[in-house]
Amino acid sequence: MMKHDVIPDVVIRRLPVYVRTLRQMLAEQVTSASSEELGLRVGVSAAQIRRDLSYFGRFGTQGKGYDIQQLELAVTRILHLDRQWDAALVGFGHLGQAIAQYHGFEQNSFRISTIFARNPDHVGQQVNGVVVLDAPAITDVVREMGVRIGIIAVPASAAQDVADQLIAGGVRAILNYAPVILRLPDNVWMREIDPTGALQSLTYYLSADRPTGKTPHTRASGRILDEAAGE
Amino acid sequence: MMKHDVIPDVVIRRLPVYVRTLRQMLAEQVTSASSEELGLRVGVSAAQIRRDLSYFGRFGTQGKGYDIQQLELAVTRILHLDRQWDAALVGFGHLGQAIAQYHGFEQNSFRISTIFARNPDHVGQQVNGVVVLDAPAITDVVREMGVRIGIIAVPASAAQDVADQLIAGGVRAILNYAPVILRLPDNVWMREIDPTGALQSLTYYLSADRPTGKTPHTRASGRILDEAAGE
Repeated sequence: MMKHDVIPDVVIRRLPVYVRTLRQMLAEQVTSASSEELGLRVGVSAAQIRRDLSYFGRFGTQGKGYDIQQLELAVTRILHLDRQWDAALVGFGHLGQAIAQYHGFEQNSFRISTIFARNPDHVGQQVNGVVVLDAPAITDVVREMGVRIGIIAVPASAAQDVADQLIAGGVRAILNYAPVILRLPDNVWMREIDPTGALQSLTYYLSADRPTGKTPHTRASGRILDEAAGE
Repeated sequence: MMKHDVIPDVVIRRLPVYVRTLRQMLAEQVTSASSEELGLRVGVSAAQIRRDLSYFGRFGTQGKGYDIQQLELAVTRILHLDRQWDAALVGFGHLGQAIAQYHGFEQNSFRISTIFARNPDHVGQQVNGVVVLDAPAITDVVREMGVRIGIIAVPASAAQDVADQLIAGGVRAILNYAPVILRLPDNVWMREIDPTGALQSLTYYLSADRPTGKTPHTRASGRILDEAAGE
């Protein structure tokens, strides 16, 4: 195990924003930038940019800043986005269907290559050439296809069971849309998508007595990028 | 400005998970719990539970633990969830339609009370009694209705403009689904919903050379709750 395996997860979670930002800069034909310029675009300090990137090697040159193309390539490789990843989607209600039809994944190294549903009305339907399969097949199909990413879009009550089935088939990364805390083995990673929780944490700042006033100790947006800086 | 206004945003972001957990416990007719039991359910340490709650007052009694009903009520009030909040949704493509039809918001103190779209095919459509309005009306309608929460579900290229219009109408909290970094004034709070970025940060852990092995310094799930603990 190499030493740099212990990079804090909070740093890893920032890297996709770097990728997105660097690609936008390439689209604008920006070829180089200082850590200050990068920080401004990403929404973190220049020091944070330098510290984050220092985990992965030496980037940028004194006086010239970062080569955007080179840095984009490097971060893409660090995140293993220089290949296509298959993902299994479980759940085909309103949310699952929206996820299945979402094109943002494809453009960013992910392909929903298998879909499962419990509802007999959904099983057999087809989306972008993928046929919706019956949920009991999850473990076998995922194992056979070698899929290592699962997307859970089932009701909260079914989510843990679905996670267990995915993991039994070899899934090691889970994107969980169900509003429930999953218990996972140590070798499985998860991210949660929780819009309701996000809204519920915003209304804290919307009380009648703090109508629009600035609070001196908080920053604009409450972005995940700003906090948890690991300082 | 009271001293406890400077509660770290990372603590605020954990509170919705507490609310969700406490409500689940009430549904299971659990009446009291220790910080250890709570921590286990929430996915953080008992010490973290105690530290988080200590920002808001004294909860729980030595030996008896926390009164779940009382704590649920308290956290609900802290987050201002003891009322219904109106939200404005902008964007009515696949994603916007899925958001408009999502029932989780209603059950959790939020109501999408106005919807805007730029596409003439969408304007005039109706969802749950809400008519989709033409996007140029955003600022006026939001101001007139006193809406303070905006949900942005438009393409990245349009998101900043939409944010500006919402803010001009009085919106102070934004849930942003567009994959772009918004520049916001200091008195506006934002959360981002970025499933692609979440997936992109998971594949870091899925390299061929770290197939399923545990890494000693990281925890199971990479939950936002675990890190950024502000310790």
